[in-house]
Amino acid sequence: MDHPNQTAQPLDGEELHKIDAWWRAANYLNVGQIYLSANPLLREPLKVEHIKPRLLGHWGTSPGLNLIYAHMNRLIKKFDLNTIYMAGPGHGGPALIANVYLERSYTEFYPDVTQDEAGLLRLFRQFSTPGGIPSHVSVPTPGSIHEGGELGYVLVHAFGAVMDNPDLLVVAVVGDGEAETGPLAGSWKSIDFINAARDGAVLPILHLNGYKIAGPTVLARHSDEDLQKFFEGQGYEPYFVEGDVPEVVHQLFASVAERAVSEIRSIQSSARNGGASSRPRWPMIVLRTPKGWTGPKVVDGIPIEGTFRAHQVPVSEVRTNPEHLTILEDWMRSYRPEELFDGNGTFRAEYADLSPEGTSRMGSNPHANGGTLTKPLDLPDYRSYAVQLKQRATERLGSTAALGDYLRDIYIKNPHTFRLFCPDETNSNRLGAIFEVTDRCLVSEILPGDDHVSHNGRVMEVLSEHCCHGWLEGYTLTGRHGLFATYEAFAMIVDSMSMQHGKWMEHAKHVPWRADIPSLNYLLTSTCWRNDHNGFSHQGPGFIDTIIHRKPAVARVYLPPDANCLLSVADHCFRSRNYLNLIVIDKQPQLQWLTMDEAREHCAKGAGVWDVYSNEPDEPDVVLACAGDIPTQETIAAAWLLRKHAPGLKVRVVNIVDLMRLCPADRHSHGMGDIEFAEIFTTTAPVIFTFHGYPGVIHDLLHGREAHDRFHVRGYLEEGTTTTPFDMVVLNRISRLHLCLDVLRYVPKMLIDGADLLTYCTSTLAIHQDYIREHFDDLPEIKDWVWSS
Amino acid sequence: MDHPNQTAQPLDGEELHKIDAWWRAANYLNVGQIYLSANPLLREPLKVEHIKPRLLGHWGTSPGLNLIYAHMNRLIKKFDLNTIYMAGPGHGGPALIANVYLERSYTEFYPDVTQDEAGLLRLFRQFSTPGGIPSHVSVPTPGSIHEGGELGYVLVHAFGAVMDNPDLLVVAVVGDGEAETGPLAGSWKSIDFINAARDGAVLPILHLNGYKIAGPTVLARHSDEDLQKFFEGQGYEPYFVEGDVPEVVHQLFASVAERAVSEIRSIQSSARNGGASSRPRWPMIVLRTPKGWTGPKVVDGIPIEGTFRAHQVPVSEVRTNPEHLTILEDWMRSYRPEELFDGNGTFRAEYADLSPEGTSRMGSNPHANGGTLTKPLDLPDYRSYAVQLKQRATERLGSTAALGDYLRDIYIKNPHTFRLFCPDETNSNRLGAIFEVTDRCLVSEILPGDDHVSHNGRVMEVLSEHCCHGWLEGYTLTGRHGLFATYEAFAMIVDSMSMQHGKWMEHAKHVPWRADIPSLNYLLTSTCWRNDHNGFSHQGPGFIDTIIHRKPAVARVYLPPDANCLLSVADHCFRSRNYLNLIVIDKQPQLQWLTMDEAREHCAKGAGVWDVYSNEPDEPDVVLACAGDIPTQETIAAAWLLRKHAPGLKVRVVNIVDLMRLCPADRHSHGMGDIEFAEIFTTTAPVIFTFHGYPGVIHDLLHGREAHDRFHVRGYLEEGTTTTPFDMVVLNRISRLHLCLDVLRYVPKMLIDGADLLTYCTSTLAIHQDYIREHFDDLPEIKDWVWSS
Repeated sequence: MDHPNQTAQPLDGEELHKIDAWWRAANYLNVGQIYLSANPLLREPLKVEHIKPRLLGHWGTSPGLNLIYAHMNRLIKKFDLNTIYMAGPGHGGPALIANVYLERSYTEFYPDVTQDEAGLLRLFRQFSTPGGIPSHVSVPTPGSIHEGGELGYVLVHAFGAVMDNPDLLVVAVVGDGEAETGPLAGSWKSIDFINAARDGAVLPILHLNGYKIAGPTVLARHSDEDLQKFFEGQGYEPYFVEGDVPEVVHQLFASVAERAVSEIRSIQSSARNGGASSRPRWPMIVLRTPKGWTGPKVVDGIPIEGTFRAHQVPVSEVRTNPEHLTILEDWMRSYRPEELFDGNGTFRAEYADLSPEGTSRMGSNPHANGGTLTKPLDLPDYRSYAVQLKQRATERLGSTAALGDYLRDIYIKNPHTFRLFCPDETNSNRLGAIFEVTDRCLVSEILPGDDHVSHNGRVMEVLSEHCCHGWLEGYTLTGRHGLFATYEAFAMIVDSMSMQHGKWMEHAKHVPWRADIPSLNYLLTSTCWRNDHNGFSHQGPGFIDTIIHRKPAVARVYLPPDANCLLSVADHCFRSRNYLNLIVIDKQPQLQWLTMDEAREHCAKGAGVWDVYSNEPDEPDVVLACAGDIPTQETIAAAWLLRKHAPGLKVRVVNIVDLMRLCPADRHSHGMGDIEFAEIFTTTAPVIFTFHGYPGVIHDLLHGREAHDRFHVRGYLEEGTTTTPFDMVVLNRISRLHLCLDVLRYVPKMLIDGADLLTYCTSTLAIHQDYIREHFDDLPEIKDWVWSS
Repeated sequence: MDHPNQTAQPLDGEELHKIDAWWRAANYLNVGQIYLSANPLLREPLKVEHIKPRLLGHWGTSPGLNLIYAHMNRLIKKFDLNTIYMAGPGHGGPALIANVYLERSYTEFYPDVTQDEAGLLRLFRQFSTPGGIPSHVSVPTPGSIHEGGELGYVLVHAFGAVMDNPDLLVVAVVGDGEAETGPLAGSWKSIDFINAARDGAVLPILHLNGYKIAGPTVLARHSDEDLQKFFEGQGYEPYFVEGDVPEVVHQLFASVAERAVSEIRSIQSSARNGGASSRPRWPMIVLRTPKGWTGPKVVDGIPIEGTFRAHQVPVSEVRTNPEHLTILEDWMRSYRPEELFDGNGTFRAEYADLSPEGTSRMGSNPHANGGTLTKPLDLPDYRSYAVQLKQRATERLGSTAALGDYLRDIYIKNPHTFRLFCPDETNSNRLGAIFEVTDRCLVSEILPGDDHVSHNGRVMEVLSEHCCHGWLEGYTLTGRHGLFATYEAFAMIVDSMSMQHGKWMEHAKHVPWRADIPSLNYLLTSTCWRNDHNGFSHQGPGFIDTIIHRKPAVARVYLPPDANCLLSVADHCFRSRNYLNLIVIDKQPQLQWLTMDEAREHCAKGAGVWDVYSNEPDEPDVVLACAGDIPTQETIAAAWLLRKHAPGLKVRVVNIVDLMRLCPADRHSHGMGDIEFAEIFTTTAPVIFTFHGYPGVIHDLLHGREAHDRFHVRGYLEEGTTTTPFDMVVLNRISRLHLCLDVLRYVPKMLIDGADLLTYCTSTLAIHQDYIREHFDDLPEIKDWVWSS
């Protein structure tokens, strides 16, 4: 059992006094935030009128968070550390606010929250109050790049932040409630992907305070022996601190934290001097302190401190029950505020002095405002990776393979600021060209049969969409760039993370001191239309819906139909800031439609008429619109069939790359004005719109357009499983034949002689069904459906 | 290190021979499924024309899965076990198919796949072939209730299945790729919630074969010492089996598995005799065997067996490269098919005899077709929990609290077939009445301060939405009933699980032998409109979108506006089968609109005119429609304001409980016919539709209705954070004032004298903004917005 020496006294009297004073001050400010709307320094006896009208907020986790902050202040100064603090426990907001106020970062970001009594009052009154700040760490919290609302991501954010940040140390506090979530449980393994020579370090501190909202936590009920095994088994060296006597816990924690920092330095120094060849055993700390420590021990005869009852407001009837008011006053006075704050209400210099200065303060560290450190990527000219068309729309080429070449060269030109994150599918997604210049990263044993795996690799492959997404969030929030590539259906595993990161960016736009950060870029491949082989469970385009529900300020969806468009879109996304950029394109070889010059022009517009695939596109009788690679293929094939079987019909083909262009201009900054919309879609012709995903997405985007009832949207209908690609488009009714039948349905009869077309489509569909039925195991694809002009 | 005795020989010669024969047969059938379309028994030399035209499928994981199946057959017979098998590794389909074919379950479910050469051929040809079956375990696989497409859920499904199933043993094979996912990592803790006296047991087998698609797996590169600590630290007793010599591995595995089963029996027997008071140390097995074991060792000079190259098709050019064809033939003949199958192609009786019989076969165990075991819940009369209205729409009462009373009595009447699953929010969600009759379940140490926590508790609280959802899936798939209650925004954490379970049920409807299973019921509380205190990260109604994208056959969304409607809806959901039933209602005290009789009638219709809240509802000038509790409140308040400020206007209030009623009848079985739709919404009046979630949902559902441009939908727009409930509806423009302004906008001017109304609304909104600005810390709610009639 690697408990610290219980008699170690690393802190001298002055240090102990200073740390304890800081801690008491932070605790005091926590309580003040929950309760007080007046009399912030208890200069007069506490009265009901000093109490907020409604008591909201959470106390339980704060004393532990405050303790860690106080101690890290000392260590940053002692070891000249470059440190940020991530608070994983839910509702740790008031603790972080208290500490960044004490270190004065808060006042620098929010000058009206001054370092005096008036400022204290403002600090208290804004908390968990309409128009104020929430009770978890959030975007307005200086020093934080981790929103504490949805639990489970503190370690992935922390590890993402230290990748390629060799000097950075992230202190990541894991709540014992949070530790029950799947994503958190799956993120301890991040040390298998941290290279001590080039990456920084995370010091995880598991804070066991025993309870969630109402019930005990799983890990708090495990013995130290079991916890030690659990963490050692994952490659950590756990240190234990337990107690409820402040002076004792201060000495223990100081001893352990100092040892942890020294070990981290030693690991890094050894790795950077070429001495390490296997995964180091990184330190971590298990901190057991009572929930709501130093708060009321008993209220109304019921124990509070150390129980779940300390989770929120430990003594709740202070406005109506004089006894409760006394308990609160005694509690607050137990921190001896008169010792801590001077006559102006300013935190006394002799205690404030515990804090480091300037950007060494955790609330002012620029890594926690990563936009200030962001440098644009040095991007190669994407046009030089163009697919050369010998003849349009005939040869099938891999679009993502072309992107792979481009990514390879981005890696070359940006050796420390770009990474690809992917659940073991880089090759499967045809991005394998990057392995010409880097490897998969793994910091455990490498075996001779491994393919492009090394400690120095910078392709982050782990079979956890949560890790991939979270690491990339941490990487971009600290100012670097990247791409998350995954199978389309399994992107939904991180729906919630995407929503929360989108919300972070939406909110950050309204926080003036937050600088723009690189966008979070998604590449979804292995799409629903080409998972005919994997079947139903692999077919799910719902992630598009998740993105379009984010605010227009952050939501971007691109459906490049071919390689050249993909390259143009990728270049655009890698230059952008503050977006969720979703790019959807399949990995299979596919028909190529546009030259690079055409693609560039088309993508710049985001949507447009494709004259070359249309039949007399001026004043068309019908518009065939498409968004997505397979929809484009079927649409152009339908246009070709129409030219053949209904030659008099004027058919316009429209392709949409940038899905948000469909929105009315007042709903999205990419939205088309009515004039441009009419130029592309006419104002009267029926539009057969073939979409990659669920049809409802298009109806949603088009809402607000005049007469959008003439848009007939086809898309994925949850049909098909293990079958052919062509059967997929048939079953979901987006096949070229169905689109032609739709034309017959919606184009006025007088404009079209449809007899030949009708016969052709229905008889061909009948043949197809027979073919599937009879030859189900002969041919994976019906060859003659490959369109050629 | 708890390795088995390396010299133990638990299998006698005949047993070893039989097990090995079974294993070879299963391996042979695996290879046949990937490669052969003719010559299934290799009666003639293998030729190109016997090979499938396109080689798809996965070999790597199968030999390990087959080994376990063979051994479990023996143990089921030896110990008279009641066992089902869950295959977590991706693409384990051909293995499970092979084994259930060998035990003849497959032929009983699919009589055309006969136990002879013709049947073998059919078995081979259907695999990973258009119209056939996918390469992972899926709905058509007998014996499975676990779809192997999306990874990470095998343990939660397994543990859910054994809850309240004391005699059931689930052998749950965890893939080492799968083990990297967050949800899987977070599910080892399930043993903290398994009570050996009343629940069955899971035997987890972590199968380390070293590689994912292309890269090494994290756990495979951890030492046995680290793995032992990792599992011991979580409360398991791990046993290790490693090897690549079949006879040796057979003996080792037999020894370990027998010991594990004995320990499980001993744990259960002790618990059931009242001897256990703490969490038992459950056995689990770590099995290290080469990826693609017994497959080609080297192809074209490159190692295959034991590397990632064995993941899919280990030797791929068999149609064009004669050397490859020879490798395949040698490989298949190495299993000595002529020994295994008789002249008819029937698996020889002396080997088939390894299998248990009837429903003891893992492919025929009724727990894997849980609908056959399902009994309806004994439901109390929901009407007796009705909220009694003294006066309509005046008093605020907790709707979920009424549901809590109902759930309590469901627990009483169904002591073994109903459970609530919830991330530590049962009390917070006001369902605490159930604690009158049961506790939270936790099987580790209980402390005196704990509140309703016991080993015997049957409320499953764990701070993991993944565990909650997955356990409930396992529970319902084995024929029992339950409810998953969670905060609305955090339901999105399990978007993907919900999609996959929905797909399972959609698919199961087309598999004739699968019996109907109880619906998976969701209760989302703490909704976006009342997370004004928690702020932006807690506001997200996107789970509705996830549900409506499922096929109409399974998707059900209910938005009861008050307690009595909630009770009626809940009763309906608990009686239903095969649905994803989503119920959304807030937990805060809320206004109550309908008597129980009215609620019952209203919910039976799912949507209707509320005359009592309308102003001359016949031939209305405008329809105010609403779906959701807060939308209902604002809509009725708007109707009331209109009555006051524009008394001549004929206003009809429509409420929708069953969201799917909005669909055209040809899109959803709940969809309204056009006549009913016109009766409710008229055919011409403007409709101001106030919706709980994103407005696009309503546009999507209404698509296909005539002239739905007259529907003006308001809903959640991602606005607001820490503020008042009323500010939330203002910022998102669904407030009563905004709805009145919408009426002024959309109702023809001649029908309404709007001057007074306009003045009232705009001036009140101005006051509100000023109020919020000036008094942001005084009042959490603006009192006079509580509507009273």
